[in-house]
Amino acid sequence: MGRGGDRSRGGLVRPVAVVHAGAGKLSSELRENEDRCRAVLLEVLDNARMMLDAGRAALETAKTLVQIMEDCDLFNAGYGSALCSDGSVRMSAAVMRGSDRAAGAVAGIKIVKHPVIAAYAVLHSHQVLMIGEDADTLAIAAGAERMANEHFVTDRQRTRLAQQAEDGDHGTVGAVCLDHQGVLAAATSTGGLTGQPPGRVGDSPLIGAGTWADQSVAVSCTGDGEAFIRGGTARRLATLVERGASLRSAANDALVDVSDLGGRGGLIALDSAGHAVMPFTADAMPRGYWRANEEPRVCVMEAEDLPPS
Amino acid sequence: MGRGGDRSRGGLVRPVAVVHAGAGKLSSELRENEDRCRAVLLEVLDNARMMLDAGRAALETAKTLVQIMEDCDLFNAGYGSALCSDGSVRMSAAVMRGSDRAAGAVAGIKIVKHPVIAAYAVLHSHQVLMIGEDADTLAIAAGAERMANEHFVTDRQRTRLAQQAEDGDHGTVGAVCLDHQGVLAAATSTGGLTGQPPGRVGDSPLIGAGTWADQSVAVSCTGDGEAFIRGGTARRLATLVERGASLRSAANDALVDVSDLGGRGGLIALDSAGHAVMPFTADAMPRGYWRANEEPRVCVMEAEDLPPS
Repeated sequence: MGRGGDRSRGGLVRPVAVVHAGAGKLSSELRENEDRCRAVLLEVLDNARMMLDAGRAALETAKTLVQIMEDCDLFNAGYGSALCSDGSVRMSAAVMRGSDRAAGAVAGIKIVKHPVIAAYAVLHSHQVLMIGEDADTLAIAAGAERMANEHFVTDRQRTRLAQQAEDGDHGTVGAVCLDHQGVLAAATSTGGLTGQPPGRVGDSPLIGAGTWADQSVAVSCTGDGEAFIRGGTARRLATLVERGASLRSAANDALVDVSDLGGRGGLIALDSAGHAVMPFTADAMPRGYWRANEEPRVCVMEAEDLPPS
Repeated sequence: MGRGGDRSRGGLVRPVAVVHAGAGKLSSELRENEDRCRAVLLEVLDNARMMLDAGRAALETAKTLVQIMEDCDLFNAGYGSALCSDGSVRMSAAVMRGSDRAAGAVAGIKIVKHPVIAAYAVLHSHQVLMIGEDADTLAIAAGAERMANEHFVTDRQRTRLAQQAEDGDHGTVGAVCLDHQGVLAAATSTGGLTGQPPGRVGDSPLIGAGTWADQSVAVSCTGDGEAFIRGGTARRLATLVERGASLRSAANDALVDVSDLGGRGGLIALDSAGHAVMPFTADAMPRGYWRANEEPRVCVMEAEDLPPS
């Protein structure tokens, strides 16, 4: 709280938050729910504004923004996650702080209400990645709220599993933030793919694949998870930026690499100067952007490039 | 088999294999077992020679070399893996082929005799990373040999767990190969850390952290797993090479980055021209190197830089 105050005399960084709710096919479902989707993203960005303006840290803010999206049944993370082939929900999430590259991630958890809080708990443990029941246990011991697996299951996702629906699995939710201190952070959370084997893990919880933050850039990816893993996408983007590439060219380059691997998707990336990009190669990627002293802006289906980076 | 024959008219690539058996502290146990360790690594490289000279693919060869090391009770992978806090063995492995970046990985498996074969089975599935029981099931369905978890447990590791021994956890085993076709591949396998929570996963099975292969370079890492994950080490090395860095500088740079994160370890890396490096920042890293038409060479404790890259 108010940690940015010290630097206000020397030059306070102008906070920024960028969020996404997954890149995927343009489903009729998304069209029908566009207004609600837009409202949730605006609420998320309003939280970003309140937290970052109050001097809260990027990591804590990114975690909270993802947590809010996990509670929304429209998005494939937390409540309303896609169902595995056995009808159960398995969730994965990761968080990373850029200043010291502290990271925490969970994969295949079942009974923690907010997977991103489980990832946050792992960040504060000796581990970086915990999987399965042990990850559930660690998170609950650290104070994360417990919830029976069936509580995550929505009728919408039951129908989707029954139909073996593959479109509209808008992979993940994610947030990248820059705080008053100039610290970057990233958070990503996902329920995986409809009908996936319960043990399948995509890129979201994998540091350097779907989630990354260092002192120069924070990244959260979404899309065909296997291609993003094989691309080492987030880490590649960050290394290109570190070696002098612009954020935009590095981000585009990263998605071209994913395309070369047969994958589609999108990402949000934010650098330490507050520049943001949100490119995607899928049909749609609900996304939003807020910068201090500006109104938040949200796009759900529009292809336009949202932030003025 | 003999796939390199076609290219022999145009210019056959000279195969290379590099292996490691983990970087870690120089334990009295390693000193006592130096001769046996050396003999196993020579046997592994002899297999590399036989397979690669016969035109076998880099991926298949790397898989087989790791498989042999998994059978050795001296190494912390497969049989003789470190024991988790509950006395059980949880194993992880990954394989990746450079030509198309096909990848497969398993984490937290319990009942597959050769974790690297499980990873190989995942490479041939629709997934890239499978965890827990589902990964065991997929591998066994694909023909991998099943083995009860207690069969992996050795008296040596029971003693180590009872003593909470932390030195001598020579993290992982790994192999990188270049075949006659000029294709690179990497494979890594680990039993994790003595006394770790059963759900902890290190860098070995994570594509871009502990394991990587593309058309330019193949990498297998070992050491403080959490630091290698936070470093996105293997993917960073590859991106630096892609952008013009020499293999040696990229590899050293990657380990400096791991050191900056408080981690120690080592890695083996091989490029498409057959250059190899095997740097480490730990006390010891048993390692070996073979190039077509040369005698295999092995170092267990010596700090000398082994291959003439």
